[in-house]
Amino acid sequence: MSTNTVKAYGTSAADQPLQEMNIERRTATDTDIEIEILYCGVCHSDLHTARNDWGFTSYPSVPGHEIVGKVTKVGSKVTKLKVGDFAAVGCLVGSCQTCDNCKKDLEQYCSNGWIGTYNSEDKHLGGMTFGGYSQKVVVEEHFVLKVPANLDLAATAPLLCAGITTWSPLRHWNVTNGSKVAVVGLGGLGHMAIKLAKGLGAEVTLFSRTPDKEKDALELGADSVVISTDENQMNAVAGKFDVIIDTVPYVHDVNPYITTLTTSGTLVLVGYLGGLEPILNTVPMIMGRKSIAASLIGGIAETQEMLDFCGQHNIVSEIEIIKMQDINEAYERMLKSDVRYRFVIDMTSLK
Amino acid sequence: MSTNTVKAYGTSAADQPLQEMNIERRTATDTDIEIEILYCGVCHSDLHTARNDWGFTSYPSVPGHEIVGKVTKVGSKVTKLKVGDFAAVGCLVGSCQTCDNCKKDLEQYCSNGWIGTYNSEDKHLGGMTFGGYSQKVVVEEHFVLKVPANLDLAATAPLLCAGITTWSPLRHWNVTNGSKVAVVGLGGLGHMAIKLAKGLGAEVTLFSRTPDKEKDALELGADSVVISTDENQMNAVAGKFDVIIDTVPYVHDVNPYITTLTTSGTLVLVGYLGGLEPILNTVPMIMGRKSIAASLIGGIAETQEMLDFCGQHNIVSEIEIIKMQDINEAYERMLKSDVRYRFVIDMTSLK
Repeated sequence: MSTNTVKAYGTSAADQPLQEMNIERRTATDTDIEIEILYCGVCHSDLHTARNDWGFTSYPSVPGHEIVGKVTKVGSKVTKLKVGDFAAVGCLVGSCQTCDNCKKDLEQYCSNGWIGTYNSEDKHLGGMTFGGYSQKVVVEEHFVLKVPANLDLAATAPLLCAGITTWSPLRHWNVTNGSKVAVVGLGGLGHMAIKLAKGLGAEVTLFSRTPDKEKDALELGADSVVISTDENQMNAVAGKFDVIIDTVPYVHDVNPYITTLTTSGTLVLVGYLGGLEPILNTVPMIMGRKSIAASLIGGIAETQEMLDFCGQHNIVSEIEIIKMQDINEAYERMLKSDVRYRFVIDMTSLK
Repeated sequence: MSTNTVKAYGTSAADQPLQEMNIERRTATDTDIEIEILYCGVCHSDLHTARNDWGFTSYPSVPGHEIVGKVTKVGSKVTKLKVGDFAAVGCLVGSCQTCDNCKKDLEQYCSNGWIGTYNSEDKHLGGMTFGGYSQKVVVEEHFVLKVPANLDLAATAPLLCAGITTWSPLRHWNVTNGSKVAVVGLGGLGHMAIKLAKGLGAEVTLFSRTPDKEKDALELGADSVVISTDENQMNAVAGKFDVIIDTVPYVHDVNPYITTLTTSGTLVLVGYLGGLEPILNTVPMIMGRKSIAASLIGGIAETQEMLDFCGQHNIVSEIEIIKMQDINEAYERMLKSDVRYRFVIDMTSLK
């Protein structure tokens, strides 16, 4: 298969910093779109993959799945976009498109295994897929999104992961005008959950362990902040929320939040993968038909729906733009939660 | 308040057997229905309450909340039933009827605390409510159900707790024709879950730890039985079920069942109150937007809906009729799971 060499930023081992490298991109096939990457958001998954925190990274590894750019080539069968259009790519670049889940636009749950934008098997070139920390990417038309013309391009990039990850559960659990939504954690995901829930017309509360995030949360659109370590504040919101979007990425006690769900309410984990400790107590659940669920990014149609909604409501992420060369420092700052609320790489810095 | 003395069977302490005693029932008020109890089902909660297993029993205690009988008196404002009609009473005899949950026919989640048929505060007479192990009961019209004429009266009694407890989640989670439902545990609740899910048109599977329940499950209407300790059988149903009704009343590992849920599926606990051990792993949940929920009995309108459905589909419980005097022996047999599938007391034995 014909390929083209492009510059990228990646790492050759878990203990090595990211650095410039060359990678191959396939020449666009009939159904492919080639995109010059203008901006790429920096997700916690990028860092975990680069450092093999989850134990399944293949090296070399090029992270990045919050991609916004300009179309530079389209295959002969492509109809969605044309050269010169702005385009976006999120966490998914492939799926079987034939299983029950794919047929329901749930490619993120593809029964035959979806293809991640990085660190997944590359069925075209062999080896593994390389992400958006690069000059160009070539993606099947189905997995490319259109970017609303009115949105700031750089601030749109994080919508492709942080945005859709919170949008999908808000929609699946029917958040609408007047819904009462709480968000646990104010990071990349949490700040998007606030903006999107607010955009949907919900009354939005942030749960925070400390008061220092109150000002930011209110500026982002939250109606109130509840300090989760304050028993009186927690009692005051008992039985209140229809949906809680829990964005905390590490193990934490979800039991106190369950008591703040209303009857038939659902707490949705979008940040944490692992065992629930302390153990989940079913008593407050049974006393109000409450649910705990978990949700993974979103499908392609739903991602486009989210982008279009953001275009209509002028919603983008809060970002700090960095150069590609600053990525290792940015990772260190992310580990200290020193980012409001998403780093976005200006990919022209890689030229 | 005027009262009438009736015979009952109850206990004066956790370590005492149940025996005959006299209790007072209020004279029916304008909105009350007085019922001569003909049959009363025996629920595990009866035993746990009599023996103070949950630590909140007040003595003397008269259990019983699966009540079927004949109307012997109605208040002047009662319109639902008349003297001579068959009537039923389940787990609820009161709620505030003004809170959001009550207004939504969810009396079982009454924000101001529902009144249980036994061991709840009796707002009419003071003291605690006494249940159906008695000759008569007087209940507010709203909490009295109509019994379809075609159903066997004795076998109808368990519908009032075991029936509605499984019906409510089947309905809330939209089980319908073609749904794939699994039931964990084959006891009083489990056998009703099979019958009701089958009645709704679902394809029904029983999860059992041992093969000895297969014949019974198939006779009850299950389409298949999966031995949950058999890895091959479990793998064969991975990702299959829309809804799992988990009726197991003691702590058990729910993780293997989560993997058998389809995308967006829900496992509903209806039997177990307490901490989930081993700890719940969110990874299989996030990889398919799966939920775990818990559900408590059902509201009054929903209970009537269930009874009417059972009338239309000729669904009743599998029972063994006992005399009131056999209750202590029946409790011992229940502890050994030696009942297919519900004891029902013939209350004429108390005369």
